Amino acid sequence: MASTVRLFVEHPLGKEQSVALSRTQAHYLFGVMRLTVGQTLLLINGIDGEWQASVVEAGKKGGALLCHVQTRPLHIPPDLWLMFAPLRKERTAFVVEKAVELGVRRLIPVQTAYTNQADRLRIDKIEAQVIEASEQCGATYVPQVDPLAKLAHMLDTWDMDRQILFADEALVGQPATQLGAQGQGAPWAILIGPEGGFSPQERDMLQAMKPTHRISLGPRILRAETAAVAALTLWQSQLGDWQ
Amino acid sequence: MASTVRLFVEHPLGKEQSVALSRTQAHYLFGVMRLTVGQTLLLINGIDGEWQASVVEAGKKGGALLCHVQTRPLHIPPDLWLMFAPLRKERTAFVVEKAVELGVRRLIPVQTAYTNQADRLRIDKIEAQVIEASEQCGATYVPQVDPLAKLAHMLDTWDMDRQILFADEALVGQPATQLGAQGQGAPWAILIGPEGGFSPQERDMLQAMKPTHRISLGPRILRAETAAVAALTLWQSQLGDWQ
Repeated sequence: MASTVRLFVEHPLGKEQSVALSRTQAHYLFGVMRLTVGQTLLLINGIDGEWQASVVEAGKKGGALLCHVQTRPLHIPPDLWLMFAPLRKERTAFVVEKAVELGVRRLIPVQTAYTNQADRLRIDKIEAQVIEASEQCGATYVPQVDPLAKLAHMLDTWDMDRQILFADEALVGQPATQLGAQGQGAPWAILIGPEGGFSPQERDMLQAMKPTHRISLGPRILRAETAAVAALTLWQSQLGDWQ
Repeated sequence: MASTVRLFVEHPLGKEQSVALSRTQAHYLFGVMRLTVGQTLLLINGIDGEWQASVVEAGKKGGALLCHVQTRPLHIPPDLWLMFAPLRKERTAFVVEKAVELGVRRLIPVQTAYTNQADRLRIDKIEAQVIEASEQCGATYVPQVDPLAKLAHMLDTWDMDRQILFADEALVGQPATQLGAQGQGAPWAILIGPEGGFSPQERDMLQAMKPTHRISLGPRILRAETAAVAALTLWQSQLGDWQ
């Protein structure tokens, strides 16, 4: 299946807009993807929607593109954050890729009591994964990636209008909660803990917070990244932009 | 976090049942997990539920366990098949692991018109992944893995009582279907195509079949393995054992 190249650029996009390419971008487009002068591709920048552009200059160290027509307007996902405790490298990459596909506005790695992998977390790598996933899945928006935040501190200073979806391992085997219409239109955050779950203190803190909604994700024990994808699916299908 | 070893054995489990260990199992339990005589672990065989057992003999080339008490009865997931076109190795492994966690009764790799990766498919590897995921996620049932089947042939001989959930890329951006109560209690199959989607002939064939339910999974384009996890989540939360 032939597929159109889709590239993220940090550059304004608009009618007749010219876009200069960096060495890395030129290598990707002309070395790897073998585009030549006159061929078309799609551009996104996270702000101006998706534009069709063509190659006007192709070199080893750079090049230039010219925007022609907007092929898709900007679609911003609902105001949903995914807060997740970092996992092992490939599982974190998986959560990030899936969150972009399923649709979030912001990704926040959180340090919890039982988080093991926070030292090795590379925010620049996560940002690169977010861009790659956005290019791949046809998104016109690129979710923001926050630096690592302490969960306890975030909860201490929480905006109580923002609802929290919390996949509680202690509910395993109990009925799944329908999110219902209660949180329609509100900002939300999905919170996914590390493999070891949340500490008793974290659990108490969450349960004491008014915006917390606990759900169960079935009778088997889900890995953290599976819980993230399942929770995003339930939220998007019930309250999000899958409607 | 200390965690209990959970092992799949092809052996009957029951009160005072002795279980002889193969060389591989002995290496795993005594070499890798460092269990010693008297220590306990959990056993599953996919049939008799989960049993607590203890080590009575630990050797380099074998050993013996003794079952004490059933810790969980057999829980068979709903009659749900996951039919999926094989993907690249690590993405297939991911689909398999997630299907076991989310709960299916049978995994069927299918050869579709646009399936590329079928030659390299190793059913024995998938079976090993299913067992590992079952040990990991606390399941007492181990899903069956079928050999590669031709999709066209399966649809030609389809049992029309079995409902088909079909994540249709052509619906991207249209409302997600609620599965509703229509298929409650019926046997189901979720069908996930390859990255290139289904051929026009396959699409026509599916649409002409009465048991076919098409759903959309949001406005972005999901990778095949994301679609598998999202479809399993929607099905389990609406019609399955998450209720």
